[in-house]
Parts: sequence; C-alpha cells; structure tokens
Amino acid sequence: MLKQHIKTVAVIGGGLIGASWAALFARAGGYIVRAWDPSEAARESFADRADKAAKQLVQLGYDAAGGVTVVASLADAVSGADWIQENAPESVELKNKLYREIEAAAPQDAVIASSTSSLMWSDLAGGLVHAERFILAHPFNPPHLMPLVELYGQDDGVLDRAENFYRGLDRETVRLKREVAGHLANRLASALWREAVSLVEEGVADVADIDRALVNGPGLRWSIVGAHMAYHLGGGAGGIEHYLQHLGPSQERRWKTLGNPRLTPDLCAKIVDGIADEAAGRSISELEQERDAKLMAALQLRSRK
Amino acid sequence: MLKQHIKTVAVIGGGLIGASWAALFARAGGYIVRAWDPSEAARESFADRADKAAKQLVQLGYDAAGGVTVVASLADAVSGADWIQENAPESVELKNKLYREIEAAAPQDAVIASSTSSLMWSDLAGGLVHAERFILAHPFNPPHLMPLVELYGQDDGVLDRAENFYRGLDRETVRLKREVAGHLANRLASALWREAVSLVEEGVADVADIDRALVNGPGLRWSIVGAHMAYHLGGGAGGIEHYLQHLGPSQERRWKTLGNPRLTPDLCAKIVDGIADEAAGRSISELEQERDAKLMAALQLRSRK
Repeated sequence: MLKQHIKTVAVIGGGLIGASWAALFARAGGYIVRAWDPSEAARESFADRADKAAKQLVQLGYDAAGGVTVVASLADAVSGADWIQENAPESVELKNKLYREIEAAAPQDAVIASSTSSLMWSDLAGGLVHAERFILAHPFNPPHLMPLVELYGQDDGVLDRAENFYRGLDRETVRLKREVAGHLANRLASALWREAVSLVEEGVADVADIDRALVNGPGLRWSIVGAHMAYHLGGGAGGIEHYLQHLGPSQERRWKTLGNPRLTPDLCAKIVDGIADEAAGRSISELEQERDAKLMAALQLRSRK
Repeated sequence: MLKQHIKTVAVIGGGLIGASWAALFARAGGYIVRAWDPSEAARESFADRADKAAKQLVQLGYDAAGGVTVVASLADAVSGADWIQENAPESVELKNKLYREIEAAAPQDAVIASSTSSLMWSDLAGGLVHAERFILAHPFNPPHLMPLVELYGQDDGVLDRAENFYRGLDRETVRLKREVAGHLANRLASALWREAVSLVEEGVADVADIDRALVNGPGLRWSIVGAHMAYHLGGGAGGIEHYLQHLGPSQERRWKTLGNPRLTPDLCAKIVDGIADEAAGRSISELEQERDAKLMAALQLRSRK
C-alpha cells in the first residue's frame, strides 16, 4: 500500500452525506475532522447527525479516537487539511465557487474529493487551478454504512492515494475507466427503477409487491454476486459463454419489451399511494432505523467472513 | 390460513430447479415427493442434486421427515399427488404434452404449478382441460435457498391455496395482478443487466468492477429495501413525494441516456473475458459453493429477526 500521512480531513457541506462521512472519518479512520457548511442551521444540527452515525459505527466496532469539530468558515476547515471531501448541492457554479475558496486556503498537496452523484469530473475540473488533485469519490448513501465508493480522476497517483484512503476506512472502491453521468451504481439503480415504475404503470403489481420481489429475489442475490456473475452461474456447466449463446437472443428480445414510463402526475400519485401502503404507518425515520439495523447486521455478517 | 391437507407432491422435470424444489418440499414441508424426468440420465443423477440441496436445508434448520423418490413414469409421479410442480424446458408444445399426461393421471383437485420463467399463463393454459387449477409459481434460482415465488393464475381460491402452500415452505410469495413475460423479478434483472452490459460496451468499467459496485452498493441496499422504498428514504423528510417532485425530471433525463446494447460477438467476448478475470481461476462449482454459503448466512440472519 502507498504510504501517506493523513491526519486532518475537511468536510465541506454538512447535510446527511457530510455528517455521515465525518463520522466515518473520525471513527473508522481516527482522523481529526473539521466540518463546515455555509448554513448556520446546518452547522448547528451537524453534530447530532454525525453523532447518530458515529454511534452506529461504534456498534460495528469502529471506535478510533478521531473527533469532529464544526468550524465557522471554509478556510478554518481546509487550512492544514490533508484530505477534503466536498458534499455541496449539485450545482457546477456553486461547487466551482467552493473550489476557488478551497484552493485559496488548503495545502497544495491536499486531495479535493467531490461526493457528487450526478455531475462529471469534466463538468467540475475546469474550476480548479490544480485539477490533477481533484477527484470524484461518490459514496452510496449512507456513506458510513454502505461500502461502495466510486472513484474517477485523471491522475493515477492521486487515484492510488484515494484507494488507499477509502480502503483504509473499509470502503470498497471501484475506479471508473472513463466518466459517465451517474457513474455505475446510480445508472444501474436508475435502469432497474425505470422497469419498477413501468410495472406499476402497467398494473402488473403494487409498489410494495415489486419491492418485496426485489428484496427476496434479485436484490438478495445481487448482495452476494453481481449481475454478470449471476448469469455465469445461471448458465450451468457452460457458464456465461453458454448463457450468452443460448439465452443472449432472448435477453435482447426481453430488452425490447421493457418499459419506458413517463412520470406523469397520475403515475406519481400511484407510486406515492403505493409507498404509503408499503410503509403501513411507519414514519421515514422509523423506516430508516429499520433499514440501518438490517444493514448493520448484514455488514457484521460480511466482516465475519 | 386456508386449510388444506397436502401430503404428496410431484416434481415433473428433474434438472437443477426440480431437484432444488424436491429437497425443499421434503425438508421444509415434510412432504412425500415423487420426482420424474423423461431422461434416464436426469433420473439417475437426480438424487445427488436433491441430496446436496437437502443438506443445505438441514444446515438452515429444515429437517422435516419428508422423502424424495425418483419414479419411472409421469403417471407414477402424479397419481395421488396433491400438488404438482412442473419444471420442464421452456417449450409450450412440450409443456402442453406434459399437462395432458398429468391431467390424465392426477387427481382432479391437484394444483398444477409451472416454474416457467419466460412463458405466460395464457401461453400454457389452453393445453389444460381444467385450467382453473393451473398456476404459474416461478421460483428464483436456487428455489431451496431463494425466498421469492412469483404467482399468477386466474382462480383466487387456487391462488390462496398456493400462497398457503409456498408460505408454509418459508417462501415469500408475490401475486401478479396481470401476467407479463418475465414476471417481476426477471424483468427487473434484465433491465439492470442491460445497463450493466452497456457499461462494459462503453468501456466505463470492467465486468468485475461493475459487479463489485452492485454488490457493495445497490445490491446490498436492495437486499434490505426495495427500489421504490429506497427513493422514499432518499427523499429526505419529504419522502417519495418530494423525491418525485424534485428528482423525477432528472430520473427521466437519466433514463434517456441509459444504454441499449446489442450482444455482438465482440461484446460477448468482452463479457466472457471479464467473467474469467472476475472468477480468477475459480470453477463454476466453487463459485456456486461460495454463493450458496453467503446466501445461507444471509438467510440465517433474516430468520433471526
């Protein structure tokens, strides 16, 4: 592994993603974390959100002695920082303004990593003087629990440092060979959801039943083997080669029949009603707690292996 | 729950799906299972395949005192059977021929359930005299481990019996409101795989990295919450309504950019090479063992809740 001495991490943007990252950096990495958000309300509520995530990390066995401080200015957060994780809203203009301020105050060798899920490296890099140290490091929500971090950048040395950094936090990094909007995970999620929405539109099943089919079928399987590997194992002794030869044409035919829904007011109302049925009176915060508890159990299972 | 007295189950078609079902019927249901396949070779190797599945079920705590007998004729399998699970190859002609033979020898109140993944009820029902007792009961492979069973039929009483039967085997049943090729799970899987194939075609990432992103990102999440519910929880305090209002349009734009690949020989070769890299020397049977071990651990975790 590449040697690097990271002590201080700056978190810019203190919403859910920022607070979750901050907790991970402190508890799993033992780093000194300085967090900043332009909104005073967000700065004030930051500690609560980060504490909640930190408690879950401690339950998972991450109890490094780092700490999170919310600071009053961006310059306070990034000056002396070795790593900067930016989690601002998805606006090129806004992020570029932040990058100018970051570059003015941060050490020149600090890596600037954006959590952006929908913007591309080339959308953003033009706003930096030293674009080579700028990367995308997109987590899957919530970052302190979900292992995936998708990486894209143009300097292999910086990407090596990023792999080293995030893997040191027990994250699973995947490096994109070329940039694409939505990276890998959100494109896959979007493709699946399009069909899930279409099945509601076509009246094939209710929202709750579609979710239940996913959780007890493909979702469960994809938590263990990926989509490509699943077809390799579905191909019998001949594996993926046999699968492609014999069932490739039927997959192509199936693809032609997949839905292409429009999110009309009617369809949106059906989805909203369907979620109300599925939630069965549970509030979002109760549903989140259930999700997190199950996620933590699944992560503990993985770490036992 | 509906009362019914099922003692004997016939398994018609003795490949991987048939053997897996047989083990589940015997170990989880305690049923007397009579299995038949037109191929002598399949009949001879059936017991080995079913035993392997039964051993995994015993590990999961399913140790009912049922038993599996391979019989020499279809009539021997279905005469006196209360439930008939058909797992023949995906040919309407072949299945209809089997249904004629089944109806000639089976009790008239036995339910005939087809495991078909790609054919529809209306493709097949024309071949039966008593179509009302014919249903689709599509498992997710391997049926003795994967909870999902997708149900479709036209007689609510028979579907109630089917829910009762499969839920009694700890399966999660989902009833389709109307039929569609590929039911729910395989349509969702196909939609996701189309994008996964496109990402290989476009050179965004290698097969192994796409699979790794899925397993550590959306797949892990979908093993816990479905795709619709995930967006409800991704919408903040406003839930799915807020999500649809604010991010619905960006999902529609994303959908337009999703890939539409053709499985050309070149692309197939890339996928085959990618799987070879991902397998890293592990044989299909080794990969299956790994998958099953992880799946069993995940199932044990679920049953603890």
